[in-house]
Amino acid sequence: MSPRPISRRGLIGGGAAAAVGVGAVGVGAYALAHDDPDAAAASRLDRTYPFRAEHQAGITTPAQDRLHFAAFDVTTSSREDLVTLLKAWTLAAERMTAGGPAGPVGPLEGAYDLPPDDTGEAIGLPPSGLTITFGFGPSLFVDDDGKDRFGLAERRPAALEQLPHFPGDNLDEFRSYGDLCVQACADDPQVAVHAIRNLARIGFGTVSVRWSQLGFGRTSSTSESQTTPRNLFGFKDGTMNVKAEETAALEKHVWVQPGDDDAGAWLEGGSYVAVRRINMTIEVWDRQPLGDQESFIGRTKDTGAPLSGGEEPDQPDFAMAGREGPIMPVTSHVRNVHPDFHDGARMLRRGYNFVDGTDAIGGLNAGLFFLAYLRDPRTHFIPIQLQMTKVDELMEYLKFTGSALFAVPPGIAPGEYVGQALFV
Amino acid sequence: MSPRPISRRGLIGGGAAAAVGVGAVGVGAYALAHDDPDAAAASRLDRTYPFRAEHQAGITTPAQDRLHFAAFDVTTSSREDLVTLLKAWTLAAERMTAGGPAGPVGPLEGAYDLPPDDTGEAIGLPPSGLTITFGFGPSLFVDDDGKDRFGLAERRPAALEQLPHFPGDNLDEFRSYGDLCVQACADDPQVAVHAIRNLARIGFGTVSVRWSQLGFGRTSSTSESQTTPRNLFGFKDGTMNVKAEETAALEKHVWVQPGDDDAGAWLEGGSYVAVRRINMTIEVWDRQPLGDQESFIGRTKDTGAPLSGGEEPDQPDFAMAGREGPIMPVTSHVRNVHPDFHDGARMLRRGYNFVDGTDAIGGLNAGLFFLAYLRDPRTHFIPIQLQMTKVDELMEYLKFTGSALFAVPPGIAPGEYVGQALFV
Repeated sequence: MSPRPISRRGLIGGGAAAAVGVGAVGVGAYALAHDDPDAAAASRLDRTYPFRAEHQAGITTPAQDRLHFAAFDVTTSSREDLVTLLKAWTLAAERMTAGGPAGPVGPLEGAYDLPPDDTGEAIGLPPSGLTITFGFGPSLFVDDDGKDRFGLAERRPAALEQLPHFPGDNLDEFRSYGDLCVQACADDPQVAVHAIRNLARIGFGTVSVRWSQLGFGRTSSTSESQTTPRNLFGFKDGTMNVKAEETAALEKHVWVQPGDDDAGAWLEGGSYVAVRRINMTIEVWDRQPLGDQESFIGRTKDTGAPLSGGEEPDQPDFAMAGREGPIMPVTSHVRNVHPDFHDGARMLRRGYNFVDGTDAIGGLNAGLFFLAYLRDPRTHFIPIQLQMTKVDELMEYLKFTGSALFAVPPGIAPGEYVGQALFV
Repeated sequence: MSPRPISRRGLIGGGAAAAVGVGAVGVGAYALAHDDPDAAAASRLDRTYPFRAEHQAGITTPAQDRLHFAAFDVTTSSREDLVTLLKAWTLAAERMTAGGPAGPVGPLEGAYDLPPDDTGEAIGLPPSGLTITFGFGPSLFVDDDGKDRFGLAERRPAALEQLPHFPGDNLDEFRSYGDLCVQACADDPQVAVHAIRNLARIGFGTVSVRWSQLGFGRTSSTSESQTTPRNLFGFKDGTMNVKAEETAALEKHVWVQPGDDDAGAWLEGGSYVAVRRINMTIEVWDRQPLGDQESFIGRTKDTGAPLSGGEEPDQPDFAMAGREGPIMPVTSHVRNVHPDFHDGARMLRRGYNFVDGTDAIGGLNAGLFFLAYLRDPRTHFIPIQLQMTKVDELMEYLKFTGSALFAVPPGIAPGEYVGQALFV
């Protein structure tokens, strides 16, 4: 534990010395400015996760309630500027995830004739379990014309290609792709927004925001300590998620392993994140009978148990007969994405519900912002998405409007910067 | 207190009898499905506010953390259909604000061959302080061609006209106007979204969503029990708000009074809500020196005290001299909207921060969704907005992209439906 607590106002009497230690700050003594400063509620918002660790935080971390995800385009052609930015982002992320301001001075303590090095909207807000997770897109390595932008082309892992255009994709280019990504998760949305906004501010002149997405409610659990939440179809989602406690499954399905890719050795201990913005035609869905909804999913709406019986965590019995064919319909979502039909492949999903105003036909622009961490998109995502597009009944109620893939480097040790292994 | 608690699953053993009593349900015995089911945290999420009261809830109610606001266009020309919808919305809103499902059956208990009467994403979630507040736009009374759409033209209050196009307005038609509005506020965004989504579902065939807006963090306090939150400029906002405890000020500045408007007598005890979607050019703001930011606002960024000194709640001294002119600059926001310069007019603000992805130039599409409840827009809003556009330094960092005005009818008694006084 740090002997010198910091707050989002600025370092309290600590200066540079305190900043060095923030990675070790745990649940700490941050000022609270909430309406209900109850100790137990506060203890949740006081949570911090170390920024420096074997893996980046924000993957197996118990999924926080709120998301702000941003994709950036790099606007410089200078490798040095890019590295400088990653170093600056590392320091800012370390400060903010520890509950501090984005810069060493903070929003209030600087000179009156200089812009503050923190934007101030998180003054007084606790750390709120903030995690900040960085990723590198295929276009960072090679541009559309095949040009090696930053001398990184030879280090691009073979799996790091733009996702294919899947049947049914109706992609908005400005909700897709990107050179870099930053995922900010927190239990207070203002804290997540503050993190992305300050990283964008720090990146001014080197990167610009390509697209960004807020998620208001998590749709997955990433820890056995969490209950399974519901998506906007009203169903429990992510029941079979790889969880933080499944260490063997994480190695097999989530973390890139030594030998997976020689060019991408820098990614060992990292992962890939598949990003899909999935609009749900909820107005049409809401007019489907309950029984049909359950058949489309393959689970009961109530408990989330498979239609073949049992409890939520129980495995479906795909052979069990129903009145017409298997009781788990061959067109059900659960069957089409189940590991049994994909060589055992599993993902760590970390999706969020979103509502972004209104669509052109008077419905809600709403759905699931799908995020899945996985060891290799060629085995753990693309075949499963392709299978979905073929026979999955759910497809009729989905419209894929955004798509991206990023390589998520491993965690870093003291003194390192995010993604350093790629640049040395 | 209701002897028969309900939950978002459906009425528990209660049926119609329980439904009658939901308006009287207080903080109750709802099932919780949160990760941190701590009693004190739960007590906040367990809060309910009666749907039937003298005034609609969601105005003086202590501002909840999250917002989903929707404007609807009426797609029928039948007055009867419109009234039928208002009756159905009343019942659904009463159920949902009490922590129940949108329909009498709920998301799970219906027949398998019928669509559920609730969409299910709020199953297990507590009431979360949900309020649902309804309003009527000018276009409900008279359309663009001057046609009396539903026989209501003669009852339109003189103040209920579309807001003028203010200097600097850059309005998106599909973020502006609307025949009806519904404001859903809750401490859980999924609960607010669930409310709007189900009201839209119930309205299918009678109304369509014209636009909708999520707000992730409140920017105003409406009760002395609340601390002043911060907007995305990083400043405390709404310091001088009319608060629930100021009963005389509410009568003077917020609630429509007998005699205010003969045609609009049905609106007595109601209010007007001025809606402005205000994009902030936060990337430019963030490059302004701290001293300049404070001069633009007229308050310190730290405590929110006026630049003339004192504490946050203290009145500014507009006569106090500074180094160059008054210490409260004549161009400061606080001065330009202060009651002293507007015949004492005050508003009850209820705004929320928003981030809606990305704008066309690589910045965040972010700002303040301004909601203000007031007795008369002609005295309490339009002159103040006009004054702002003239000399307020803040205008350089604002872009008004949405605008609307609605009349918000008073509360209703048992047996009545929302807005009934307008139709009888």
